[in-house]
Amino acid sequence: MAVTGAGLEGIIAAESEICYIDGDAGILSYHGYNIHTLAEHATFEEVIYLLWNGKLPTQSELDALKKELVAHREIPKEVVDFLRLAGKGSPMDVLRTAVSMLSLYDPQAKDMSPEANYTKAHKLMSQTATIVTTFDRLRNGKEVIPGDPNLGYAANFLYTLTGTRPNAISERTFDVALTLHADHEFNASTFAGRVTAATLSDIYSSVTSAIGALKGPLHGGANEEVIRMLLAAGGESDTAVEMARQKLSTKIKIPGFGHRVYRTEDPRATHLRKFSQELGKATGHENLYNASMSVEQLVHDSKGLNANVDFYSASTYYSLGIPIDLFTPIFAVSRMSGWTAHILEQYRNNRLIRPRADYKGPEDGRSWIPIEKR
Amino acid sequence: MAVTGAGLEGIIAAESEICYIDGDAGILSYHGYNIHTLAEHATFEEVIYLLWNGKLPTQSELDALKKELVAHREIPKEVVDFLRLAGKGSPMDVLRTAVSMLSLYDPQAKDMSPEANYTKAHKLMSQTATIVTTFDRLRNGKEVIPGDPNLGYAANFLYTLTGTRPNAISERTFDVALTLHADHEFNASTFAGRVTAATLSDIYSSVTSAIGALKGPLHGGANEEVIRMLLAAGGESDTAVEMARQKLSTKIKIPGFGHRVYRTEDPRATHLRKFSQELGKATGHENLYNASMSVEQLVHDSKGLNANVDFYSASTYYSLGIPIDLFTPIFAVSRMSGWTAHILEQYRNNRLIRPRADYKGPEDGRSWIPIEKR
Repeated sequence: MAVTGAGLEGIIAAESEICYIDGDAGILSYHGYNIHTLAEHATFEEVIYLLWNGKLPTQSELDALKKELVAHREIPKEVVDFLRLAGKGSPMDVLRTAVSMLSLYDPQAKDMSPEANYTKAHKLMSQTATIVTTFDRLRNGKEVIPGDPNLGYAANFLYTLTGTRPNAISERTFDVALTLHADHEFNASTFAGRVTAATLSDIYSSVTSAIGALKGPLHGGANEEVIRMLLAAGGESDTAVEMARQKLSTKIKIPGFGHRVYRTEDPRATHLRKFSQELGKATGHENLYNASMSVEQLVHDSKGLNANVDFYSASTYYSLGIPIDLFTPIFAVSRMSGWTAHILEQYRNNRLIRPRADYKGPEDGRSWIPIEKR
Repeated sequence: MAVTGAGLEGIIAAESEICYIDGDAGILSYHGYNIHTLAEHATFEEVIYLLWNGKLPTQSELDALKKELVAHREIPKEVVDFLRLAGKGSPMDVLRTAVSMLSLYDPQAKDMSPEANYTKAHKLMSQTATIVTTFDRLRNGKEVIPGDPNLGYAANFLYTLTGTRPNAISERTFDVALTLHADHEFNASTFAGRVTAATLSDIYSSVTSAIGALKGPLHGGANEEVIRMLLAAGGESDTAVEMARQKLSTKIKIPGFGHRVYRTEDPRATHLRKFSQELGKATGHENLYNASMSVEQLVHDSKGLNANVDFYSASTYYSLGIPIDLFTPIFAVSRMSGWTAHILEQYRNNRLIRPRADYKGPEDGRSWIPIEKR
């Protein structure tokens, strides 16, 4: 036993059929479908089906999935009551607690059959979205908007968040953003979820672990920092560049750049850059796109770092009218599809995930010293 | 990148100074103090201090720790209200949710300074115990018992659970049981906690992940199964042996035997066997100890498997009057000391924990097929 990798970098933790990443070539695909193909053609519901089942759905399979997702949108009254009380809480703390709480009101919670777990994955997909939008409505003193069964996942999310049915470009942008964030192999939150699932703990416990891990600033949250930087610069390119230059000169990390896995441009950034531009034009936030471009140029030229998924999602989400402190909860809403896919996969071929430590403390056998002599 | 270990078996995930295990020699020590030394001499509060600080406390350090732990015992009213409503819930689901909820009412929740995190570790130690005892009182329609500041951690737990101050043997038994379960290197729950902490997520998120992982039957819960088996046998040795023999002949796993790490007797079992006997005699449950011994003999002789920590903790906890479905929450109460120690250590020398998958799915580049042609 001497195999080691700091932070498990380069260590293979398990087999998986869900997601392929070639960080050197900048390739990301779900079950063999390249992320560019999916961004061009797929709806988020098709991607959910793909992640769970390894194939694209037929029309009837897709209809059934959509029906099931709509049917499970409502959250228990007790969770609504909790969200009402938790109005001032940090959104990720609230989301983690509320998702954990869902298990108490799910009669299937203890049923570990594949069928029950598959149904629970549907519930988690839909109810996580409802938790986020319900929380935001309640904390702003607004009434909760029941979902519209005629709206798809992305449109219904924006509708129940803002109270307005989104136009076509907003719906499509958000739908593709959900697809782009849906999975990313054994990222830290997914891995936390798989470690939890590998004890054969239930799916609610497992996604709760994932949400807790996503909360950390080394994982989620970078797009919140990006938009705060752009807004602090007043959306002015020159000011944003100057601020970024100062950070670089004092070795402060600029959010939204670099990635543990990618050595090229993050393929997800390609699409979000385009959305940031299109949606910025449509909503009067083109200055944020322009400022982003200028900062990207600076960081690329001076540090050789590429924009990652977080950099252009910042201005994209802002242009969609999403409150900044919901950017990470929205990441969770999207990644719930990947988390649940990985947890279901872990159950299908399970082995306890239990590494070892490289012990660096005092040698075993220290003598006991009575307290009065310490 | 081709290094692999199924379930990360034999893979070193990080350096650690907290816990040493030699599974071949049957050695377990915390910061160099062998578990047998600690079981003989230490109180659980000394062990908590040791795990957090790497040394045994002086008298004044111990006094300060105890004072701090007592000061943080009370849980927020909102959490009590949740526990009141959650009366019929699965105890581990309730515990996971309640601990997650604590973060919403801790004004220090967002403070990631080492000092604040150390204080939060104290809060988590004390409040996890209060959550478990409060939940059990409320679900049984009993009034909640405020802690007694003159009682130590173990005695106060039993007092607030049962309403009766424990006698010396019960207190000492439970205190040592807490010490024996306090840490176990990178077990799955601790590892889930460290994966979460390594994104620089907060300590509440991290221990919530750990609780979720402990819930799984491959990690916690085996002692619940053990006591159910012993009780199903009516505490009769012959019946218990016959039941175990039937399980063996149909290849059903007998709970409480074998371990991923130990190839010898689990050194913790040595002490719990003794407690099971002593406390069994004192409380009229010696038959459970005798039946345990008989089953242990059978499994050892026929399978070469050794009893692990869960086997004799079953009859020990039962003799202490602890409800069976609280055995795993009590494991969490104890392991909270190790979890928090590992999370604080992770923060001190952090690196994102992000392994890779061995991708076995379809090759990237699958063509998009329009839905009507699928």
